[in-house]
Amino acid sequence: MADARFFHRAGPFLLSEIAAMIGAEPLSADDEQTSIEDIADLEAAGPGHISVFSDVRYLDALLPTQAGAILISRKLAHHAPATARLIYVADPRRAYAQVGRLFYPPQTLNAGIHDSARVHPSACIGRGTQVDPGAVIGRDVDIGERCHIGANVVIGDGVLIGDDCRIGANCSISHALLGHRVEIETCVTIGSQGFGFVPGPAGLERMLQLGRVIIEESVKIGANCAIDRGATQDTIIGAGSVLDNLVHIAHNVRLGRHCVICAQVGIAGSTVVGDGVMMGGQTGVADHLTIGRGAQIAAKSGVMRDVPAKAVMGGFPAMPIKDWHRQTVGLSRLSKKVE
Amino acid sequence: MADARFFHRAGPFLLSEIAAMIGAEPLSADDEQTSIEDIADLEAAGPGHISVFSDVRYLDALLPTQAGAILISRKLAHHAPATARLIYVADPRRAYAQVGRLFYPPQTLNAGIHDSARVHPSACIGRGTQVDPGAVIGRDVDIGERCHIGANVVIGDGVLIGDDCRIGANCSISHALLGHRVEIETCVTIGSQGFGFVPGPAGLERMLQLGRVIIEESVKIGANCAIDRGATQDTIIGAGSVLDNLVHIAHNVRLGRHCVICAQVGIAGSTVVGDGVMMGGQTGVADHLTIGRGAQIAAKSGVMRDVPAKAVMGGFPAMPIKDWHRQTVGLSRLSKKVE
Amino acid sequence: MADARFFHRAGPFLLSEIAAMIGAEPLSADDEQTSIEDIADLEAAGPGHISVFSDVRYLDALLPTQAGAILISRKLAHHAPATARLIYVADPRRAYAQVGRLFYPPQTLNAGIHDSARVHPSACIGRGTQVDPGAVIGRDVDIGERCHIGANVVIGDGVLIGDDCRIGANCSISHALLGHRVEIETCVTIGSQGFGFVPGPAGLERMLQLGRVIIEESVKIGANCAIDRGATQDTIIGAGSVLDNLVHIAHNVRLGRHCVICAQVGIAGSTVVGDGVMMGGQTGVADHLTIGRGAQIAAKSGVMRDVPAKAVMGGFPAMPIKDWHRQTVGLSRLSKKVE
Repeated sequence: MADARFFHRAGPFLLSEIAAMIGAEPLSADDEQTSIEDIADLEAAGPGHISVFSDVRYLDALLPTQAGAILISRKLAHHAPATARLIYVADPRRAYAQVGRLFYPPQTLNAGIHDSARVHPSACIGRGTQVDPGAVIGRDVDIGERCHIGANVVIGDGVLIGDDCRIGANCSISHALLGHRVEIETCVTIGSQGFGFVPGPAGLERMLQLGRVIIEESVKIGANCAIDRGATQDTIIGAGSVLDNLVHIAHNVRLGRHCVICAQVGIAGSTVVGDGVMMGGQTGVADHLTIGRGAQIAAKSGVMRDVPAKAVMGGFPAMPIKDWHRQTVGLSRLSKKVE
Repeated sequence: MADARFFHRAGPFLLSEIAAMIGAEPLSADDEQTSIEDIADLEAAGPGHISVFSDVRYLDALLPTQAGAILISRKLAHHAPATARLIYVADPRRAYAQVGRLFYPPQTLNAGIHDSARVHPSACIGRGTQVDPGAVIGRDVDIGERCHIGANVVIGDGVLIGDDCRIGANCSISHALLGHRVEIETCVTIGSQGFGFVPGPAGLERMLQLGRVIIEESVKIGANCAIDRGATQDTIIGAGSVLDNLVHIAHNVRLGRHCVICAQVGIAGSTVVGDGVMMGGQTGVADHLTIGRGAQIAAKSGVMRDVPAKAVMGGFPAMPIKDWHRQTVGLSRLSKKVE
Repeated sequence: MADARFFHRAGPFLLSEIAAMIGAEPLSADDEQTSIEDIADLEAAGPGHISVFSDVRYLDALLPTQAGAILISRKLAHHAPATARLIYVADPRRAYAQVGRLFYPPQTLNAGIHDSARVHPSACIGRGTQVDPGAVIGRDVDIGERCHIGANVVIGDGVLIGDDCRIGANCSISHALLGHRVEIETCVTIGSQGFGFVPGPAGLERMLQLGRVIIEESVKIGANCAIDRGATQDTIIGAGSVLDNLVHIAHNVRLGRHCVICAQVGIAGSTVVGDGVMMGGQTGVADHLTIGRGAQIAAKSGVMRDVPAKAVMGGFPAMPIKDWHRQTVGLSRLSKKVE
């Protein structure tokens, strides 16, 4: 289904192979021998495709589907037409993502350093790593194995990058240590100077920004983000956290593990965010705050105070989301009285 | 008037030539032979300049102006001093833009591929296209005629670009099909992976992002924007739409034709925006919404529900703008009572 | 204390040298001969380190500190343990920044133009300036002395850059005049076309953008910012102003001197901002407004009207901050009544 200009499909695969990979319930002998060519949405799927049903909102697509096989949970199976070939899994969405990676594996790396890349002689580039045209790699940089360094990326002196990392084109990375399996989209800044000044006789003087950016393993960072290095301590992005596009992370911020930070969020200096925190798009968090683990902040919130663990917040200034909903209702009544 | 370091002026032109090009009302024989050297604001204009008057707010500048000719509508003409040489047009602002392009035509392209650009042998570069230093163009890329590919731009495998496109320096474009006359400013990301994850045993696993970005003809995209490719469907930017700087467009968003999207707007995944929609700066739109054609969303709104066609909305959560203005008034009274 | 992978320490220095540089009160003869190796936070400091105490919030760190010397004001000195070696200065934070620059001086430039940089023969590069790999410098560009042009930076024709400027990697700069000592982080756009259109028969037509960007001396610009060039006038960033990451400055904006603009702020077209204005993160300012000198706008404000000099504003729409705080309280009561 994916455009062959951009995505290279593997397969076909037997349903038995697919089922084994995703830990599905056993298939009938007949189903096992069914050949599957591709993945597809329920609407688009034909007899050679495997699809997924995981949400009753998409019931309209389920009934008429021509899909050759459908990933589904036992719980939702009764919605399916009797003729459908159902593959039972505990988590159909996750199984679908896994099957997708089977059909569309990550692009094979073309190991080696392009002639036009400029790699300092003291830099160490791991086995199997691909360095694209125009990349510039500084002194004492250490890049792990099987990484992909995109075209025109600039990596400053001393940066350390783990194995299996992917750095998108036109990124600039300095003063940073990256763990394994970090993925960074394009036009991203990592390690810029933080925003700290002190008044002097001739205007603002910059405070030293002597910290680093520590990006732990399996972090994913969206396009055009900017993450400043620490001032005195380090800026830390915890393992497994994911950042969407155009996110700003200020100096000394410590983001926990497995956080989900949506697009255009800004987190001001020295704020500490616990594990598993979720922030909706365009949220702003003031400096020097503590956001407790597992807290959820609705989109476009303005967080001006500490947030307790597991709290669900919204609004500006951010408050418990129930209060915010109440305010919204109250305001709506108020505006009617004004008439 | 423009700085010759940056802008190359054509001309001079006779008023007759100018009037013909913009469809002005007939001139007197004397006016026809008047030579015009440049465009200029009313304040700055001298006898060799053509200027424009289109808004009574600028009346103070009209009366003392030295401009050699003034583009004006019949409706506003009575404001002008009797001595002024008036050129009557239906839409003075548009006529002024046209005259501006006459004096300051787009820079002539220097067709060819710079030695330091890295173009894959399978890529096809159209006649008259200029590829600047350090640009990197991937396998099977197809670029039309008379395009300008800026320095250090990175274009991924399989990307298709129409005729007369302009891609600014340091952009990264992948998984995308661009129509004719698309203009993209600098440091822009097109085609990055969308923000879709599913929980797995070891943390968040990325959903496949197997769609494309379709940018239809005559779209203009501002600096440092980020537009993700689709997940299962495509991300689409409709013909003639214009995006300002630092805009975020998530995966699967479908933006209509002739939309105006101001700076720092964010549109979340799978939202469908109708033709002719306008969004003020810093507006956020939640995912999976439908914004009806011709809707206008005031700056900094937070849109959390579907918006009907032609609605005028504002506030956070976004509501009909009259309601929002009422709330603003009501709140202002409320705060006085609190004292 | 700083990671030697990234930061190169000078010294050690005698306390007498340090005290002389920062204008401290006279030391005892014994103190004068004390050798200091590094700077450090109170918590991390040992006997060879100099630290700072400037805020009673950090009292807990002061009492047990092992720091060999502490920068402190006379006013706060009574908090310090009797055994501490105190260095009296009028402004301890500023003194600490100065001492920091002594131990961590700016990296020495490696003057010259890298082989892979593409410098137009007509460009003029000042003495002592370092041009990194892949940088592209256009026709008639004039760069001053002791500048650092980062890797893969693209500088358009005619741009003028003063002395002692630093342009981070992957920036794109065009249609701009930069004063001395300007510092720009990475992935920044300067000089893009502004967002001005006029309706035509076939859709939106771009208004000419014939102005420039004037960046006065000592301005500092954060990562991934976008600053459009003027349309008819110039876009101006006043001397000594500092911009954080991901800031949007539209065409014709005139920002005063010594302004502090936090991350993700957006200032719309033709707005004039006075000297010394501060804007908190994610603030939006509408077009054609005047923000008086010394005004302070709280984070996430939406400014829709002119702001008087020295006003302190907050909220959306922005209002005097006292009113906004009152509203917040009133709203909170309101939401309780709704229950």
